[in-house]
Amino acid sequence: MTSSTRKLNLNIGTNTTGYLPNAWKYRTGSRHDIYDPDYYRRLTELAHRGLFDAVFFSDHPALMTDPNGRPFHTIDPLILCTTLAAQVPDIGFVATMSSTYNSPYNLARRTQSTDIVSGGRLIVNIVSSFNPGVAANFGSAPLPPRSERYAKASEFLDVAKKLWSSWDPAREGDIQEGRFWDSTSAHTIDHAGEYFTVKGPLNVPRGPQGHPVIAQAGASEGGIDLAARHGEIIYCNILSRPAGQAFGRKVRDRAAAFGRDPSGIRIVPGLVFIIGENREEALRKHELYSGTGSEDGLLARFVKEYDLDPSTFDPDAILDAERFIPDPNRLQAVGMGLGLSDLLAHERLTARQAIRRSEGHHRLVLGTPEEVADAIIDLWSDGTVDGYTLQPPRAPDDIREFVEKVVPILQDRGVYRTRYEEKTVRDRYGLPYPA
Amino acid sequence: MTSSTRKLNLNIGTNTTGYLPNAWKYRTGSRHDIYDPDYYRRLTELAHRGLFDAVFFSDHPALMTDPNGRPFHTIDPLILCTTLAAQVPDIGFVATMSSTYNSPYNLARRTQSTDIVSGGRLIVNIVSSFNPGVAANFGSAPLPPRSERYAKASEFLDVAKKLWSSWDPAREGDIQEGRFWDSTSAHTIDHAGEYFTVKGPLNVPRGPQGHPVIAQAGASEGGIDLAARHGEIIYCNILSRPAGQAFGRKVRDRAAAFGRDPSGIRIVPGLVFIIGENREEALRKHELYSGTGSEDGLLARFVKEYDLDPSTFDPDAILDAERFIPDPNRLQAVGMGLGLSDLLAHERLTARQAIRRSEGHHRLVLGTPEEVADAIIDLWSDGTVDGYTLQPPRAPDDIREFVEKVVPILQDRGVYRTRYEEKTVRDRYGLPYPA
Repeated sequence: MTSSTRKLNLNIGTNTTGYLPNAWKYRTGSRHDIYDPDYYRRLTELAHRGLFDAVFFSDHPALMTDPNGRPFHTIDPLILCTTLAAQVPDIGFVATMSSTYNSPYNLARRTQSTDIVSGGRLIVNIVSSFNPGVAANFGSAPLPPRSERYAKASEFLDVAKKLWSSWDPAREGDIQEGRFWDSTSAHTIDHAGEYFTVKGPLNVPRGPQGHPVIAQAGASEGGIDLAARHGEIIYCNILSRPAGQAFGRKVRDRAAAFGRDPSGIRIVPGLVFIIGENREEALRKHELYSGTGSEDGLLARFVKEYDLDPSTFDPDAILDAERFIPDPNRLQAVGMGLGLSDLLAHERLTARQAIRRSEGHHRLVLGTPEEVADAIIDLWSDGTVDGYTLQPPRAPDDIREFVEKVVPILQDRGVYRTRYEEKTVRDRYGLPYPA
Repeated sequence: MTSSTRKLNLNIGTNTTGYLPNAWKYRTGSRHDIYDPDYYRRLTELAHRGLFDAVFFSDHPALMTDPNGRPFHTIDPLILCTTLAAQVPDIGFVATMSSTYNSPYNLARRTQSTDIVSGGRLIVNIVSSFNPGVAANFGSAPLPPRSERYAKASEFLDVAKKLWSSWDPAREGDIQEGRFWDSTSAHTIDHAGEYFTVKGPLNVPRGPQGHPVIAQAGASEGGIDLAARHGEIIYCNILSRPAGQAFGRKVRDRAAAFGRDPSGIRIVPGLVFIIGENREEALRKHELYSGTGSEDGLLARFVKEYDLDPSTFDPDAILDAERFIPDPNRLQAVGMGLGLSDLLAHERLTARQAIRRSEGHHRLVLGTPEEVADAIIDLWSDGTVDGYTLQPPRAPDDIREFVEKVVPILQDRGVYRTRYEEKTVRDRYGLPYPA
């Protein structure tokens, strides 16, 4: 792509009621929306009006039954994407699924099927799962250790790629008299690895994108390895330009070290936006939607989250980056926890400033529609990021607000599409087709 | 249901090009139809015109690469049903899936999801898989023995049923101030059985049918046990009235022995139909579509299939039922092989007659549209069967022919619906809702 045609890529996440756990109190709609397919259709139509690249569905195959929370994943993401693709044109879909709790044959088949029926609009977000509540739904074995989960995920994608290309009707020669097909267009893959033994071929042919675009999240070392080997769209948390540039270099250098052309990688980190008439209003919304109620509430949450000593905590003292590096052995996703320490390594910030820079570990952008648009363009314009995976606090409200107020500004600035042109998500992202 | 309102239930199978392996030579369309979603949409619209209860997709998760055959399953059935349900109203869908090569949590979640997005139109056909080519796509272990596969399938459905009812928003009480939901509407299932350990709850709530309707195929002893425990719609092969009545009694008696109300069972065996201007034309079509070319060809296939001695074979001698009882230890589905021996146990038939009574182990009905309609009504009118799963030799041609020529006769006779009334497949079959 030449720089003159380079366009900002934007995915939009929805979860059930939006991304911020407490923001549902301020959203439009019924709480029964979360398992109403028509609600997701309306969200997707709204996203289509916003000309987004794709609707992103994160996932855990488990119901969170904390009475104070809300179920934030219910309908199976691939089923949901499949029905939505039949109802809403153009827009792509990111479906999250676990490489720990699926078999490669079934997953490769289902995703290739959805890619075919959607006309090349599927992005598969492979996660290795980190939640013991998920493990308990799939047998008596505990969650495998992180290193094993990543190794397994990598082999899983090796197998999936072999399967996705194992039957290609375009390879057919002349069809012999009396035969339906040239069966040499399909071949076994005979994969026998450390974790998987799969004969193949897949019984679904190569699809319109060659195979679904592969998204990959996670910024731990294992996650970066996986992204470098297989990721085409990298979902991550980038809180500043220097941290983002360092991350991008790391992933691309490692891809090159693995013998992969790094030009086939797009970085679209999460971004939480809160739009106000002015910055003050956005700050107040942040306090409400985060459930903390005030700036002091945000600071108290910060103290608690990072296990700081409240008696010595000074919200206006410069924070020490070292103090915020997460334990690499912790159960939760490690990579996401790196955002703050990476930010503090490059910028001198107080806690009062830091609490306004991220939400749920992702970059937070607060302000007027112009300020939000500027902040989005900022890290995109020099290639630090290729775009963003937007994380609206409330669905549908903040999606609508972004579509109506921010999208026109991005279009006016000439950085964002004014209509869908390319047919597949792969083309829309300018990603190469698999061989 | 009173007898005055009792209606014939009809599902329509499609496979890729229809049911008979050689009939594709005489079908309309391109061989690329088989992985074209638009083709399946057209078939489903045609089926909708025919007011069928459901479109039936059989399945093997493996590509048959015999150069003389044709791939008869490709796109994942549940994905296909999900996209078709978004495009075609009213009609139900039977999606086949394996209890041997899926996890109960994922399968329960996906199917409940499709049932919700389709508005209660999903029937899940659980099979235990019998093909070593399938096993090789899921690891290095050989196919488990049949007894284990059936025991596992039965526990699989126990788990699925627990999961399907583990979260029911209708159980919600008053929602406390500041809370999104009443999380006591969901409960863990804590299943720890011989094959599965699953905590739950499912993160998809109870759907419009309570849970998807459960179809079950197979007439071996293990298959009948499974049908009696879990089957709501029984797909089987019934070649004659006495055999059908014996089968129905067996399944219903066993259900009662398991403490289940047998009134929640519907028997809809496979039926291959071949329509001609007259019987002679239908016979010739049978010879063509079966790939045998002539009556002698059909007889030669019969000799080969049952490993008879060609030197002593007399096509006009009465066949001995005992000779045709399949080996219960054979690899292939046992139940389907019982059709012929059951038929011969009740009717004195020569090979020349027997070859016209079944095709692919299923009841074959040959003749004019009136003759086909009469044959369908015959076993339905006294309750031997509740309807049929039609197996057209060619798709789309024979589906169209049935819809245009046979459906109006069935309607004229007052045995078949003239429009869709009930919303869910469960209601359309008059099946009880799970508690």
